[in-house]
Amino acid sequence: MKIVQTVEALKALIRQAKREGKTVGFVPTMGYLHEGHLTLMRQAKAEQDVVVASIFVNPLQFGPTEDFAVYPRDLERDSLLAESAGVDLLFTPPVEEMYPSGHASMLTSVEVSEITTGLCGASRPGHFRGVTTVVNKLFNIVEPDRAYFGQKDAQQVAVIKQMVKDLNMNVTVVAVPIVRETDGLALSSRNVFLSQTERQAALVLSRSLRLANEMLAGGCRQAGELRKAIAEMIEKEPLAHIDYIAITDAETLKEAEVITKPVLVALAVRIGKTRLIDNMVWEG
Amino acid sequence: MKIVQTVEALKALIRQAKREGKTVGFVPTMGYLHEGHLTLMRQAKAEQDVVVASIFVNPLQFGPTEDFAVYPRDLERDSLLAESAGVDLLFTPPVEEMYPSGHASMLTSVEVSEITTGLCGASRPGHFRGVTTVVNKLFNIVEPDRAYFGQKDAQQVAVIKQMVKDLNMNVTVVAVPIVRETDGLALSSRNVFLSQTERQAALVLSRSLRLANEMLAGGCRQAGELRKAIAEMIEKEPLAHIDYIAITDAETLKEAEVITKPVLVALAVRIGKTRLIDNMVWEG
Repeated sequence: MKIVQTVEALKALIRQAKREGKTVGFVPTMGYLHEGHLTLMRQAKAEQDVVVASIFVNPLQFGPTEDFAVYPRDLERDSLLAESAGVDLLFTPPVEEMYPSGHASMLTSVEVSEITTGLCGASRPGHFRGVTTVVNKLFNIVEPDRAYFGQKDAQQVAVIKQMVKDLNMNVTVVAVPIVRETDGLALSSRNVFLSQTERQAALVLSRSLRLANEMLAGGCRQAGELRKAIAEMIEKEPLAHIDYIAITDAETLKEAEVITKPVLVALAVRIGKTRLIDNMVWEG
Repeated sequence: MKIVQTVEALKALIRQAKREGKTVGFVPTMGYLHEGHLTLMRQAKAEQDVVVASIFVNPLQFGPTEDFAVYPRDLERDSLLAESAGVDLLFTPPVEEMYPSGHASMLTSVEVSEITTGLCGASRPGHFRGVTTVVNKLFNIVEPDRAYFGQKDAQQVAVIKQMVKDLNMNVTVVAVPIVRETDGLALSSRNVFLSQTERQAALVLSRSLRLANEMLAGGCRQAGELRKAIAEMIEKEPLAHIDYIAITDAETLKEAEVITKPVLVALAVRIGKTRLIDNMVWEG
């Protein structure tokens, strides 16, 4: 595995691979890798000739009061893990390589409207503009055939698919199922912030999604009922505070009232100071 | 020359050319071709193996009160001219091919801030967002090595260069000098709207730029003086109404007061109902 820090060096290596007729898979991450990321990398490796992964904690997608400064970072450990998962090129640009004039002075932005206003977008203004802008840049730098994203960030997947479609970008976006601990907790780099007690409390997210799944399987088609049952379960957990419970069309992210087609049930819950998200898609 | 109407058909032809190791030059236009466009096409042909030109009157870059509906169109004549200038692939997508859900329902936009607020941006809100969004799409569809734009739209050139740099797009933007009639009028598809009298009055744009050039060559370094002299000359022409006279840094488009480096002198003037632009860069 080669570790590359500059756009030019990475582009040169990718150009070389493409000249040799190789396909390129891409896994963009913010690092502090866990089994979820490694699953993306292994799937990319199984499907593509060359796997590029990036580790970049993108300042553009964090709000001024959010956890950019304390977001966990461990490049040494990440390198070993990425290599073990089959990554060929690990792109770890410093902030000034991605934003030469500083991220606050970046004049160009890529924005997806409507589907970014609900769910995580409601409490994180500007977050998705930061995501789509940096992912657009990374897609132009890497020019991947396929790019792999975790379904845990369901809204992010929908937003990036929309951008790719609207801008005729030459990449296929692949959503990979959520990876969970054996007790159900969805893997997240932010889980490291949880105390032992909070770690237990955090199980309420996956537990309430299982409840939703049972209700749907049992014939419930009223979003209001589902939401009420999920809220009641989460509110019983003293350390948990609901940010949102969203029941939406899986593609358009429009709020559903009566459930008729594939539906996304998505949660954001604060456990102590840590904001966690989880979701399930019910195909019907 | 092949005429192609769909994104997929064009991508297939370009993929084929790239597999054969050919370089691709691209000339995006709104059609109603004149010698200015043909100059771009000939230069592209001289420098690249394959030349793609597009003709697309982009609704996204016209304001609700602007001339989208009446913008001149003549695809038959344009095809002959493009072929004569060496175009290999002429892309003429219908609006629904570029905006499958309708341009008003397009969720994704690409926007460049700051350098889009002055000059033409001031009187055409949303115009440059429409331009950068469609050019971003076209660059993704064509994946050109070099793209050719007329320097007549000086702000457009600066904005597109900024987008390409900020988003790490894999294309070199080439600005080609303004082509003029022998009497000095800059070529424009909108010149067709001018009556005989207006056509004469329109010469005031290039005449006032020549005055600015003489003043600069003579040692004038005060933007205020230049602006005043240009305004006085234009105001003597009864059919002319000044939209703006801008004297700016040629790259950042920031207003200059004392002229110390390459400076852009740019004009927008209404002649009757027709809004014309013209400019010159003084290198010093």
